[in-house]
Amino acid sequence: MTSQVFTVKLQPSGRRIEVPAGTKLLDAARLAGVELVAICGGEGSCGTCRVLPIEGKLSPPTLTEQGELSPEDLAAGYRLACQTEVLSDVSLDIPAESLTTPQRLQLEGQEIPTELDPLVIPAEVELTPPNLGDLRADLSRLDQALSDHGFPQVRFSLGLLGKLSPTLRLNGWKVRLALRKSEEVVAILAPGSVLFGLAVDVGTTKLAAYLVNLKTGRTTAQAGAMNPQIAFGEDVISRITYVNDHTGGGEILQNKLVDALNGLVNELCSAAGVAQDQIVEAVIVGNTAMHHLFTGLPVRQLGEAPYVAAVGSSLEFPASQVGLHLAPGAYVYLPPNIAGYVGADHVAMLLGAGLYQVPGTVVGLDIGTNTEISLFHQGRHLSCSCASGPAFEGAHISDGMRAAPGAIERVRLSGEVFQVHTIGGQAAVGICGSGILDAVAELLKAGLIDMRGVLNGEHPRLRTNDDKVEFILASAEESGIGREIKVTRKDINEIQLAKAAIRAGMEILLLEAGIQDDDIQHFIVAGAFGTYLDLGSAVTIGMFPNLPLERFKQVGNAAGSGARQLLVSARQRRAADEIARQVEYVELAVQPDFMKVYMAALAFH
Amino acid sequence: MTSQVFTVKLQPSGRRIEVPAGTKLLDAARLAGVELVAICGGEGSCGTCRVLPIEGKLSPPTLTEQGELSPEDLAAGYRLACQTEVLSDVSLDIPAESLTTPQRLQLEGQEIPTELDPLVIPAEVELTPPNLGDLRADLSRLDQALSDHGFPQVRFSLGLLGKLSPTLRLNGWKVRLALRKSEEVVAILAPGSVLFGLAVDVGTTKLAAYLVNLKTGRTTAQAGAMNPQIAFGEDVISRITYVNDHTGGGEILQNKLVDALNGLVNELCSAAGVAQDQIVEAVIVGNTAMHHLFTGLPVRQLGEAPYVAAVGSSLEFPASQVGLHLAPGAYVYLPPNIAGYVGADHVAMLLGAGLYQVPGTVVGLDIGTNTEISLFHQGRHLSCSCASGPAFEGAHISDGMRAAPGAIERVRLSGEVFQVHTIGGQAAVGICGSGILDAVAELLKAGLIDMRGVLNGEHPRLRTNDDKVEFILASAEESGIGREIKVTRKDINEIQLAKAAIRAGMEILLLEAGIQDDDIQHFIVAGAFGTYLDLGSAVTIGMFPNLPLERFKQVGNAAGSGARQLLVSARQRRAADEIARQVEYVELAVQPDFMKVYMAALAFH
Repeated sequence: MTSQVFTVKLQPSGRRIEVPAGTKLLDAARLAGVELVAICGGEGSCGTCRVLPIEGKLSPPTLTEQGELSPEDLAAGYRLACQTEVLSDVSLDIPAESLTTPQRLQLEGQEIPTELDPLVIPAEVELTPPNLGDLRADLSRLDQALSDHGFPQVRFSLGLLGKLSPTLRLNGWKVRLALRKSEEVVAILAPGSVLFGLAVDVGTTKLAAYLVNLKTGRTTAQAGAMNPQIAFGEDVISRITYVNDHTGGGEILQNKLVDALNGLVNELCSAAGVAQDQIVEAVIVGNTAMHHLFTGLPVRQLGEAPYVAAVGSSLEFPASQVGLHLAPGAYVYLPPNIAGYVGADHVAMLLGAGLYQVPGTVVGLDIGTNTEISLFHQGRHLSCSCASGPAFEGAHISDGMRAAPGAIERVRLSGEVFQVHTIGGQAAVGICGSGILDAVAELLKAGLIDMRGVLNGEHPRLRTNDDKVEFILASAEESGIGREIKVTRKDINEIQLAKAAIRAGMEILLLEAGIQDDDIQHFIVAGAFGTYLDLGSAVTIGMFPNLPLERFKQVGNAAGSGARQLLVSARQRRAADEIARQVEYVELAVQPDFMKVYMAALAFH
Repeated sequence: MTSQVFTVKLQPSGRRIEVPAGTKLLDAARLAGVELVAICGGEGSCGTCRVLPIEGKLSPPTLTEQGELSPEDLAAGYRLACQTEVLSDVSLDIPAESLTTPQRLQLEGQEIPTELDPLVIPAEVELTPPNLGDLRADLSRLDQALSDHGFPQVRFSLGLLGKLSPTLRLNGWKVRLALRKSEEVVAILAPGSVLFGLAVDVGTTKLAAYLVNLKTGRTTAQAGAMNPQIAFGEDVISRITYVNDHTGGGEILQNKLVDALNGLVNELCSAAGVAQDQIVEAVIVGNTAMHHLFTGLPVRQLGEAPYVAAVGSSLEFPASQVGLHLAPGAYVYLPPNIAGYVGADHVAMLLGAGLYQVPGTVVGLDIGTNTEISLFHQGRHLSCSCASGPAFEGAHISDGMRAAPGAIERVRLSGEVFQVHTIGGQAAVGICGSGILDAVAELLKAGLIDMRGVLNGEHPRLRTNDDKVEFILASAEESGIGREIKVTRKDINEIQLAKAAIRAGMEILLLEAGIQDDDIQHFIVAGAFGTYLDLGSAVTIGMFPNLPLERFKQVGNAAGSGARQLLVSARQRRAADEIARQVEYVELAVQPDFMKVYMAALAFH
């Protein structure tokens, strides 16, 4: 008798695993290569393997769970993975604290030295206390002191005014003010307090947050987390659909994100020993959809032709308006969006990589489900967005997964030699974007894939079952999940679609500028996947043009670097506006040559 | 056998009545002269006599109540007065909708013609919709249109931007914008929509709200309500004490008030057939404590020497910041506070009565628990605040009550003639401020009170019991509550304290200006009590100087008129700032002559 088999889907990594009915969630996760904290070894006595079921049928909560989980957790539907059995196809959300090794979050990104030109500066004032002979209001007294310091006509938000009287009295009428653009006070602090800023890159999948000392410009602490909106759709389009289909959906997604950002703020503050009130300015960058979902702007028109942004220009508003807990008067700044699918994060990336300052002909791109490309040539700046799809995020690939521990990220195949390397060096549990890119490139070089993308030839790891040809990257014995990890014809096809979209976008920009591949003097690749991908492989499969390797540069999370620059430099904010004003956005959908170029780019040459 | 007797206190009127244990609340209210709606005649079948017990022991809810009251009302503790028996001293809050005749709310106030110079003006724009050849963001398109209309660099709040894209599409890309100070859009409306403003006078006891058409300057609708903060203290000091003693107390009082204001907005919108989004600006006036409690500013320092305001200057901020539901970007403006006890309402009163424009020597005053007085003389503007106490609000007077139906408001006593007149003309249930003022003045004129305030002499209504001498205004048979309504020695003493405080404040201002009573050319009395009081009586008891009656003018709710002017006139806002800048606030507590002047003013002359 064979028992029924169900699929367990594990968020946020996106791993799937098939298990027999009755399998414990903890075991299912382990089989999928997702290691949960389980200090007690699965005895139900430590409460550390908390998971949140999203859908599917599970065994009812045990008495052990009722004892170990808090009433709040129970009410919210949390379960202990070691106690809970799979009774149907299920989908689970695994909180970050339940994972032994969190998903790789790419926080780095080079620091381009930026001249400090912060928007918020400290001003130390000492006031004479009121008495029966001097009954001026507290604010009038402070206004006078600011005027004496050379700052007349300074504004205060209501939230800040609410703290004024007690803070003045608590500090003996001597305080440090955080003064923004010489026109508004955003924080009232104890004398000598250091001012900090918050920069966040809000990715569709990941959040990267930085705490920056506004006096030195240095990053004091950094922290990463998954974007919690992932539970409402893995990509931008499915989140827009969620908002369109649910009343108040936009608010829900906004609140989820803001809660996560507040969590990161707490984490950064604890790590650096900084009070929330000391964070006097924030910069948030993200694609146009993340930008709109964070700010509470409507997204319906982003999901319908002609796909326009509600707001393109740079925005700034009090952080309290979106519920972000910083200093009471702190502002949030977001750089401009270029178009519906070329967002503020691309502008930040161009700044962070110093791209718009590089002389000569430069291509800059950030590969994701949408790939944004900019071409700078003879004073023109062209940009476009390519629908490259989620293959490089591990989606739509049979054994695909995100860049988490156990993911195959490198493949080498040369004659007798065959090597795979996984993130963390452990037994393979799947294959991530840079791994599938490598695999396809190596199979091409070895002649095991033809120009149409068909697998054939002779190799010990190449196996033909009926009509299906597959290349085995890890056998059931080699893998960490007890079954094979392989590359299929369909996987190769997904990579073809992605690379053709990216290459065709680039070709259209070159056509528009009237130049050719070889005219590109600098080719800048930003973002997580762009940093870890093998440039040779990208050239081999034809995704990138065949330029000398020294013209390429991988710059890491340049959007995060750009966000930090925008935090400390009014000059960089003007540059961001300038980029948005000068850019020529090229809508690929209306380019007559696009389909021809795209079809040509599908093949391997 | 006599049954136990308990006191029932009825809010918001402040009426008290003693009743035997077991008396129904409906009957107790009737005995106290407070008529509840009870359509069914007390059968428990209409549910209209809802009351909210504040403290005390009552009979448990009956099945009838459980059937008639909504689950929300039951959960909130509401009872039906016809079903509920008094089992201890109790205190009740009576919702406005349960009263047959609401407390008299003074909404009137003369309209001084004001040149229309509104801060918010309409701008009608039509945009070309986006297409694949023109992918500008919605906001960029609107910015361009505004720039074409001569308004470059216009700001939008985040809340408004959230409505931009759907509103543009709903109205076929043709909309009316509400443009504030030519620099910010505060509403996006269907083409042709009329713009309105909201003006509110927030009194310690009462709220008076006006809906004003910003194009014509006319008041379209007005509505009044009790200030719900009354449940947390009848006067300013007890509310400050509440906030000092309760964590989050300030927020509670703020929310109560804002909820009531939102209720008034709904009422005004329904009455006038106007949508909330059409209310594009608000002006709120109130004394310094009401100002601070509305805006969420700290009040502790208002309750402690030297009693300073947190904020003195005029304030404006988005209405959404305090949760007031108007157009998404609408602002609230509050005129400046002169001092801790001379608030923004006094400034509005000076504007509303046109006082600062009257040539010559002018006194303006608004009598309340605190009485604010301004003296204009030869280019100087002096002001002070007098602690006149709550006697004129009916408090501390043995049979005192607020100006509600059944209150004695006029007394005439001349030889054989004796008359009392009540609000609404019904049998007397108590005596309000103008009634006690009249009573004391008439008793003085009849020689039944000596200069110390002692009652004596011969009159059929003058009765001596042991040492107590009392004047009977209504016998048990004449009154509507089955017992006497009288004036006592203690009542007269309360009036002496009040009138001395007011007169002494005025004298100090005259001394400061170096002038005498007779130099006063115009004597302007504002506010509810000031409007209903008998000027002759006020002169008789020495509260007002003995000037020819034609120099006096009673101007009604001038603060409300001032608020309406501030709504439609940027010029009046500049005038308000000018008043605050020029005024010389005179702190009575530090005036060496004050006690002497005050002591002299206590006696009747």
